[in-house]
Amino acid sequence: MELLKKKIVEEGVVLSDQVLKVDSFLNHQIDPSLMQEIGRAFANRFRESGVTKIVTIESSGIAPAVMAGLELGVPVIFARKRKSLTLQDDLYTEKVYSFTKKEESEVSVSRRLLSPIDRVLLIDDFLANGEAALAMARIVEQASANVAGIGIVIEKAFQNGNSKLKEKGYQVESLARIASLKSGFVEFID
Amino acid sequence: MELLKKKIVEEGVVLSDQVLKVDSFLNHQIDPSLMQEIGRAFANRFRESGVTKIVTIESSGIAPAVMAGLELGVPVIFARKRKSLTLQDDLYTEKVYSFTKKEESEVSVSRRLLSPIDRVLLIDDFLANGEAALAMARIVEQASANVAGIGIVIEKAFQNGNSKLKEKGYQVESLARIASLKSGFVEFID
Repeated sequence: MELLKKKIVEEGVVLSDQVLKVDSFLNHQIDPSLMQEIGRAFANRFRESGVTKIVTIESSGIAPAVMAGLELGVPVIFARKRKSLTLQDDLYTEKVYSFTKKEESEVSVSRRLLSPIDRVLLIDDFLANGEAALAMARIVEQASANVAGIGIVIEKAFQNGNSKLKEKGYQVESLARIASLKSGFVEFID
Repeated sequence: MELLKKKIVEEGVVLSDQVLKVDSFLNHQIDPSLMQEIGRAFANRFRESGVTKIVTIESSGIAPAVMAGLELGVPVIFARKRKSLTLQDDLYTEKVYSFTKKEESEVSVSRRLLSPIDRVLLIDDFLANGEAALAMARIVEQASANVAGIGIVIEKAFQNGNSKLKEKGYQVESLARIASLKSGFVEFID
């Protein structure tokens, strides 16, 4: 998605070989028009996938997911993220390990919101090692629903998330794929 | 806003005289079309207010704020919420006391994202005692910017948030104002 790549080049800050900061349009400040274009791009890629619901994780996934939901005409669920969670019967809960923060957290979705007939599109802002997307996919499996696909705004393609998700058989669509952040430069795939 | 009131009556769950749960369209699952209508309603009420930025608090404020930002053509900042925060020079930070959770948390916005020329529309999902909105307003003041107004999706008008905000001189626009949740029923003002 050219508009997104342009924005990353112009406003992204390469903090290290591993970390790209996009606080000015995605992760802290949000560019609503760009989010609308991102929503349309996801909708175009998954329009024939029979999507009935979108699941994302708070907070940075919400804006792109809601715009995709608007385009596809389906509800969006944001999984709640917490450090520790008292076990609650009415929630599907999965652990997510963050390599960036070096801590384990839990994400949860109310059982009432997913049913076996759902075909769920998972959306997230970043794909790195795939831990967050895999946790969302396990929640969908817990509900005996199906993963219709995985939509990623920015993929760090030099990490192994994409291959882990494809090994599981999921269709992964990333709107910007970054080959490298070396020497402070963003190099895209394609 | 009639569409919103209808949704509250049909899908809201009154948990007590004080607590209304709207997890099916705002606080956990999100209805994107309703959010678009909410965004348009906020834009209509603040179109002449010279808004340059919107500030909300993660996570439930993000969807309505992004839709309002799309309509008004301005960026949206979501303040980060944390339990404890190591003091960071590059952040404006304010404390918020939650009467529901009986705990104090902090919200923060990167200094880089607000400047004295900004006229900031504050948006939040709920207004109860006004603590969250007041914390956002103090962040705007820290940046020597101005509050253009406050947009609330659902106001619990039987609590004192609205009068606290109006005492400070802010224009408060709530799309649904709840007079009472007594006996399990939602009673609106107007």
